[in-house]
Amino acid sequence: MKNSLVGELSAEFLGTMILILFGVGVVAQVVTAPDGSLGDHDSITWAWGIGVTLGVYVAARLSGAHLNPAVTIALAAFKGFSWRKVLPYSLAQTAGAFVAALIVRFVYSDLIAKVDPGHTIATQGIYSTLPGNGVEGVSIGTAFFDQIVGTAILVFVIFALTTAANNPPMANLGPVVVGLLVVAIGMAWGANAGYAINPARDFGPRLASFITGYETAWVDQNGTPYWWLPIVAPIIGGLIGGALFKFAIEGFLPAEAEEITVSEPTVPEPRGTTTDTTQNA
Amino acid sequence: MKNSLVGELSAEFLGTMILILFGVGVVAQVVTAPDGSLGDHDSITWAWGIGVTLGVYVAARLSGAHLNPAVTIALAAFKGFSWRKVLPYSLAQTAGAFVAALIVRFVYSDLIAKVDPGHTIATQGIYSTLPGNGVEGVSIGTAFFDQIVGTAILVFVIFALTTAANNPPMANLGPVVVGLLVVAIGMAWGANAGYAINPARDFGPRLASFITGYETAWVDQNGTPYWWLPIVAPIIGGLIGGALFKFAIEGFLPAEAEEITVSEPTVPEPRGTTTDTTQNA
Amino acid sequence: MKNSLVGELSAEFLGTMILILFGVGVVAQVVTAPDGSLGDHDSITWAWGIGVTLGVYVAARLSGAHLNPAVTIALAAFKGFSWRKVLPYSLAQTAGAFVAALIVRFVYSDLIAKVDPGHTIATQGIYSTLPGNGVEGVSIGTAFFDQIVGTAILVFVIFALTTAANNPPMANLGPVVVGLLVVAIGMAWGANAGYAINPARDFGPRLASFITGYETAWVDQNGTPYWWLPIVAPIIGGLIGGALFKFAIEGFLPAEAEEITVSEPTVPEPRGTTTDTTQNA
Amino acid sequence: MKNSLVGELSAEFLGTMILILFGVGVVAQVVTAPDGSLGDHDSITWAWGIGVTLGVYVAARLSGAHLNPAVTIALAAFKGFSWRKVLPYSLAQTAGAFVAALIVRFVYSDLIAKVDPGHTIATQGIYSTLPGNGVEGVSIGTAFFDQIVGTAILVFVIFALTTAANNPPMANLGPVVVGLLVVAIGMAWGANAGYAINPARDFGPRLASFITGYETAWVDQNGTPYWWLPIVAPIIGGLIGGALFKFAIEGFLPAEAEEITVSEPTVPEPRGTTTDTTQNA
Repeated sequence: MKNSLVGELSAEFLGTMILILFGVGVVAQVVTAPDGSLGDHDSITWAWGIGVTLGVYVAARLSGAHLNPAVTIALAAFKGFSWRKVLPYSLAQTAGAFVAALIVRFVYSDLIAKVDPGHTIATQGIYSTLPGNGVEGVSIGTAFFDQIVGTAILVFVIFALTTAANNPPMANLGPVVVGLLVVAIGMAWGANAGYAINPARDFGPRLASFITGYETAWVDQNGTPYWWLPIVAPIIGGLIGGALFKFAIEGFLPAEAEEITVSEPTVPEPRGTTTDTTQNA
Repeated sequence: MKNSLVGELSAEFLGTMILILFGVGVVAQVVTAPDGSLGDHDSITWAWGIGVTLGVYVAARLSGAHLNPAVTIALAAFKGFSWRKVLPYSLAQTAGAFVAALIVRFVYSDLIAKVDPGHTIATQGIYSTLPGNGVEGVSIGTAFFDQIVGTAILVFVIFALTTAANNPPMANLGPVVVGLLVVAIGMAWGANAGYAINPARDFGPRLASFITGYETAWVDQNGTPYWWLPIVAPIIGGLIGGALFKFAIEGFLPAEAEEITVSEPTVPEPRGTTTDTTQNA
Repeated sequence: MKNSLVGELSAEFLGTMILILFGVGVVAQVVTAPDGSLGDHDSITWAWGIGVTLGVYVAARLSGAHLNPAVTIALAAFKGFSWRKVLPYSLAQTAGAFVAALIVRFVYSDLIAKVDPGHTIATQGIYSTLPGNGVEGVSIGTAFFDQIVGTAILVFVIFALTTAANNPPMANLGPVVVGLLVVAIGMAWGANAGYAINPARDFGPRLASFITGYETAWVDQNGTPYWWLPIVAPIIGGLIGGALFKFAIEGFLPAEAEEITVSEPTVPEPRGTTTDTTQNA
Repeated sequence: MKNSLVGELSAEFLGTMILILFGVGVVAQVVTAPDGSLGDHDSITWAWGIGVTLGVYVAARLSGAHLNPAVTIALAAFKGFSWRKVLPYSLAQTAGAFVAALIVRFVYSDLIAKVDPGHTIATQGIYSTLPGNGVEGVSIGTAFFDQIVGTAILVFVIFALTTAANNPPMANLGPVVVGLLVVAIGMAWGANAGYAINPARDFGPRLASFITGYETAWVDQNGTPYWWLPIVAPIIGGLIGGALFKFAIEGFLPAEAEEITVSEPTVPEPRGTTTDTTQNA
């Protein structure tokens, strides 16, 4: 009964909730502060990254801490994670992101009302992503390709950091390095589409904004429907990144190295890593 | 006689003192510097977080390094920490924060006198928190709820990082991740009430400012009594965060995993974590 | 067949590709954003450094993760790495950097066209380095000497961090510290010549910019040929740094300490370090 | 013959040289860049802190990596380090800082000549510290007391992080946490006197600036002799910090815990920590 699917879904829900409490929270703080006095884009990248680290520590023991449907699908495609669990995991992740965004929406309601009383697209970016972060000049095609590249990088490096035969970080510090990965994606791949790289991260808060007064929730700054892009493109990108790792790195790794690490009892394996789940599954 | 309550209280006093020497110190440096030349809000979040990390390393072996009455109370409620020690621990933490704030007050007296010779609310924020960090627009109710949420996140994640069965960071690096947690709280949950999330952190320096010339110590920017809020709300929030971890994560963890880790002598358990204390208690 | 030279070159290609996806990507994001809204020079240093960390984790198991011809040559000169592999490694690194820069060039094409439609030297710095980062006042001689010093620091410290007898970081966390090394080089040694400190990092993206419309690719802001400098000077600097470590630190290290670590099976050696390769070779 | 005093002094020389190559280098980069385009005070704190981390990794195996006469003297007073070695260590540290500052002076000479052709006190701060960082309003007495407090914090926390019975960071990652300590000191204790907290760090570069054209090297912005303060006050502060740790923390630690850690062969002790030297001595 213990460690059952209910526990796994509880962990995915709460891990993603922690991630979004920091991620949507930091954007709310930066956007509503006068004259950049409480942070800037770098704060956003650091708090998102640390939020990932902490969300992974919360959930990893029970569920493997995917916290992202694009990661869950890539694990099912390449690492033996059960396809039957993909939908429940994805729903739990999206629900956790939704609840976290509601909490931010409520606690920051005074400050949001002060800078954007009409709840327009000016503060829509607190919750969900926009092409070019709301500035003109980035086409939908570019945003789509950007999300493929960003998520491919994410999943490729996560696989490199969590495949035992590839010698990942030890002492259960993999989650810290995964957090740094997300920090750097925010700094280098955040300009074209706001680095959603996670369907649950984008859709859950988007829905939360819609039911709390944001009519701009489903479209971009030009009124074009946009909500589907941060769902579809990250899934494609995650599959590409996973395939690249599988064939261009893992294909060359010695199979026996994995056994040695697994059978070694005195040094605990790094946990809090996504592939742990595949070993449990 | 060694490692007695005196040692525990000495550790809590000094660990919290280190935390506040950095935390109140960095705000003093940023607030008194001309044109933001010696740091900004991000510096504040990093120095507070690193201060937590270092304070925990100082105190963890002797006392478990709570450094925060809200953490101490949550540990008593959910992790078996002795209720009899809650008051002495809280007083030692508050005393450490008080002494550290006096040292900052003294060393920074030249610079404070330069920018705020009347010791008004303009520099009150060096020592203690204000709704909306002193800017208008955040209600007392919002500040109260913000402190509940911020401290619930703090205690929930600390429990996740220090419960052996949940696979915490190893190699005694938990304190570094706890520091990152506080950095990210400052970046994402610092706008509504200045992220006190710790009654000792707020009350000790508030008292130090009062006895050294700050008549605004006990009120907010509108003259409303405020000193009680960063005491009451964090205690409530800590209990909520602890309960959430207990029932939604720990309830699903396999009990036997904990034994295995505890009985394994060749890899030292992560120390410097709050639950260590419960094992000593 | 497994773990053959093909695998090593695949790892060097992909590891350097990850490094440049972050490194060139972050400069593209900062340079094309309106009014510094998506990062500044500090973001550049952090994303480059984290990119190094992640690239090393990707490649270290298969190839030792040199990711830099100046490092490969220094390892051949001082650590027994096979001279026959120097050229293939360097070509794989340069190819990985070239492909990564093409991806950035393509994904950021909308934003680059917006700020620099003529693809002039104004955005040349996204891909390759310039003396004084394009500002007047730094002579070619100074840039040359700067690159010698910067790369000497890089290789000297990498050797200190990866020589077993010198007690490197454990738990396979060396790559994180190597990343911090590159962050700090960017902060302290980035003013005179943009801290290429890596021939592949500079030449691959330079070539990618040339074939996609940048006529300024091969010269500096005064029209003087410059592409050769970030190739020649880092190689010289790497040899100086390696020699300094060899004679001034390693010469004093006890030889037996290395044996003990190597023969100890219960704690895995730090991987992801450049000298691992020499042990494989 | 190996690991003799010559090796120890070589390590102290090179470790301090690395520290100052980053520390003085980052200030040169920030001060000479147009409009803060290549970093700000936060960059200075990060590069100094990372410089400490890297300098410690360079030197720790051979010498224990003091890199600071105030640390060396405190170790002699409280941790059994040989008093006979205090002077040679201090001279090696100062010489390393001197040579590193000369290298920065030379490589940055173009950029320094551009912003301060007369080599006045405007760029003196690249090399050595000033009360209030050169701004008016901080008395000599305040600067003196500030340096006592800053160095007391430094040594107190270093002792906490390197005393085996106090459960320091493992996996040889202590140097990373010591670096974070220096980052935070720069953020919170850098306003009154520029956080020298190290006689070698201040005197070596001060001398290097004097012999290369800075007539302001020995005085503060008012012409008062100042060079002695960052030597005397840190030594006093280090002794106070060491004494505080000795009596208020170490006095309560169980003596047997230290034995257990020392006698355990399968997990290497954290190295790169200052007390290692006392065990070698």
